[in-house]
Amino acid sequence: MNGKTDLETLIEMMAKLPGLGPRSARRAVLHLIKKRALLLMPLADQLTRVGQTVRECLNCGNIGTASLCAICESDKRANGELCVVEDVADLWAMERASVFKGRYHVLGGALSALDAVGPEELRIPKLLDRIAAENVSEVILALNATVDGQTTAHYIAEQLEGRIAVTSLAQGVPVGGELDYLDDGTIGAALKARKAV
Amino acid sequence: MNGKTDLETLIEMMAKLPGLGPRSARRAVLHLIKKRALLLMPLADQLTRVGQTVRECLNCGNIGTASLCAICESDKRANGELCVVEDVADLWAMERASVFKGRYHVLGGALSALDAVGPEELRIPKLLDRIAAENVSEVILALNATVDGQTTAHYIAEQLEGRIAVTSLAQGVPVGGELDYLDDGTIGAALKARKAV
Repeated sequence: MNGKTDLETLIEMMAKLPGLGPRSARRAVLHLIKKRALLLMPLADQLTRVGQTVRECLNCGNIGTASLCAICESDKRANGELCVVEDVADLWAMERASVFKGRYHVLGGALSALDAVGPEELRIPKLLDRIAAENVSEVILALNATVDGQTTAHYIAEQLEGRIAVTSLAQGVPVGGELDYLDDGTIGAALKARKAV
Repeated sequence: MNGKTDLETLIEMMAKLPGLGPRSARRAVLHLIKKRALLLMPLADQLTRVGQTVRECLNCGNIGTASLCAICESDKRANGELCVVEDVADLWAMERASVFKGRYHVLGGALSALDAVGPEELRIPKLLDRIAAENVSEVILALNATVDGQTTAHYIAEQLEGRIAVTSLAQGVPVGGELDYLDDGTIGAALKARKAV
């Protein structure tokens, strides 16, 4: 009897993960139980290990195992460019592209009047401190192209006006994108930002 | 550095779950880290607990915490009906419908010439033993309506011919189903099995 309850509890927990619902949580749990030695126990151990060791970088908000993350620790990344992102997932996406060689600042979300998220709820004060303390020459706003993301970008740009160079990611046709499948807004932005060949 | 490797290992493990890929595994791991106390640590503990306690029922192949599962233990379920399913997931689906009051037998898959799965690889010998040993009056084949599932159903029906009543789930229009969206095979099966109103 107790076993069924343990299983049901596990399925409920798995169903809370983004991208999984009750049905896929059941499938995942059955899969884990079938591969107990290969998957279930290692996953449990790894979760425990990550849960015990992972912490937020005190400087930029990235996650790592020390008080400073690997990027903030590395002198090679101190090139004066500071890329502002909303979430750690965005930082990872930038790192996967491996074109940015500077440091990051993770805001921990975007300003939102609806959800009552103001500058104090985000790491915006810390951003201003870092710009004053570190040798930052350019702030690159890599925020989501959503209403909240763009509001946040405007707010930060306003705060930094006249003090430092502020840029944002270019908007336009995605690499490999077909015009026929693009939304009107993207085509409009790409046309406005057209450049000489 | 080590932290990043731990995180990457965790993401790789999560990406192996059915229904999750690398992208959704990253999202899930970030979500877990954000809700460390509420989700990550309890999930790790629950996985460990389930991994240590859950085992296969020696009688029917269901999963539970004792050598006999709750259904095989319960006298109330000994009504002479034995429902044969391919997997534990199918048993759970039957139980959710809560219309079947008998016991189950989990085969652990279906016969498959392509994957070299013969009767000995499944729990078919154990099924024949149970029918001889337990007071079974009817075997209900609740196997998937796939080629392998139906091959398995035919094989079991052949083995039991003349010894015991063998039935299978009805095929037809699903409850709430619209004819327009049904495949030809289902409409054909429903027409063949039509009944007087």
